[in-house]
Amino acid sequence: MARPLILVSNDDGITSRGILNLVNVMKELGEVIVVAPDGPQSGMGHAITVGDTLRLNESFIFEGVRAFECSGTPADCIKMARHFVLKDERQPDVVVSGINHGSNTSISVLYSGTMSAAIEGAIEGVPAIGFSLEQVLKKGLPKGVALNVNIPAKKNDNIKGIRVCRQANAKWVEEFDQRFDPYGRPYFWMTGNFVNFDKAEDNDEWAIANNYVSVVPCQFDLTAHQAIAQLNEDWDILR
Amino acid sequence: MARPLILVSNDDGITSRGILNLVNVMKELGEVIVVAPDGPQSGMGHAITVGDTLRLNESFIFEGVRAFECSGTPADCIKMARHFVLKDERQPDVVVSGINHGSNTSISVLYSGTMSAAIEGAIEGVPAIGFSLEQVLKKGLPKGVALNVNIPAKKNDNIKGIRVCRQANAKWVEEFDQRFDPYGRPYFWMTGNFVNFDKAEDNDEWAIANNYVSVVPCQFDLTAHQAIAQLNEDWDILR
Repeated sequence: MARPLILVSNDDGITSRGILNLVNVMKELGEVIVVAPDGPQSGMGHAITVGDTLRLNESFIFEGVRAFECSGTPADCIKMARHFVLKDERQPDVVVSGINHGSNTSISVLYSGTMSAAIEGAIEGVPAIGFSLEQVLKKGLPKGVALNVNIPAKKNDNIKGIRVCRQANAKWVEEFDQRFDPYGRPYFWMTGNFVNFDKAEDNDEWAIANNYVSVVPCQFDLTAHQAIAQLNEDWDILR
Repeated sequence: MARPLILVSNDDGITSRGILNLVNVMKELGEVIVVAPDGPQSGMGHAITVGDTLRLNESFIFEGVRAFECSGTPADCIKMARHFVLKDERQPDVVVSGINHGSNTSISVLYSGTMSAAIEGAIEGVPAIGFSLEQVLKKGLPKGVALNVNIPAKKNDNIKGIRVCRQANAKWVEEFDQRFDPYGRPYFWMTGNFVNFDKAEDNDEWAIANNYVSVVPCQFDLTAHQAIAQLNEDWDILR
């Protein structure tokens, strides 16, 4: 069997330490191609570049690995990799994105550029991972699923194992730090506190806090399926 | 009962025709406050501004309506509205976002800045709508749910009714149009074709194509819940 083709991206940009580590591990597992942002794209969520142009340039920073830096978002990178760079070539067997500095648990999956590259892979039908894994190459993934993998910031020998879990019910409570520029005009820094409302043990926040690697299978259907029946029942205008 | 407080935003920017129409309709239903981007933010998905500053300036373009333009994304606008502008005031009863030029059906919900403002409202526990509605003010919405409302581009008397439905299984197949700038360097425009894989009738693409208003309840839990059991069964490393 041919070595798997692994498409690597991230949201911290192609020169970050995390993607270098990821590329080095992926080289052991298969053939690697990198298409990653040319600068930081943290917090870009699932943004794509609409109404503006994109640049794509070959990069030679990874030894022995074909790589491109793209002026767009992580989602743009996956689209350009599949439909421009690899258009007439073999398509990737898996998309991996990261390694992100800091955790991408719970609600962060919505804001994270790292996970958007993985989810863009899943939309395209390519198994996709918010960070890595041998099991995926061996067993595959359910269609349309992307894995959001987070690892506790502990030494390896303290990690208790791996938990497949759901996205925790947690969110950021924002505060805006108002300052004034040298011309007296106000500007703002968004800050805030992370609040976990989830008391259960089957979620990613619990896993990380208890020294487990968390694996959340994610999908891109935002439908609140359970609400459909309720709205059909409640709303007069539907009758 | 006090008139409801309606927070209005969009992704086309505060000077667009769609938000003007929306503000004018919302003024009939309650007290309106606008916090919207100071320029186009289409395709920004759920992006937020991280590692950069935000500007917020009062705007006087809507007669008799308190309004602010923000340098950030639609999600930033809702965060600033709730946690800065209205920090010590009454919080909005509902968030409405739009009216978007062009449809936001199926997979577009993931890329749409319009829906991200609505979903940000839902994360914050405020009933939120990708466009409007009286029923929501009367009956409320299930907690954490945002409505994605699309209206067929037909005359009113041809519209058959309203359908509560799920996000269609459809996606864009991208193409990249490569051109060269006056210095001979390549740049790209993302283009592509919309492909609907969904043959069923309970989805938003079907509703719009058949002259129904589509209403998709959306949520922000990306967990592929049905995949959790399968991964637990398939993966050797969990044992």
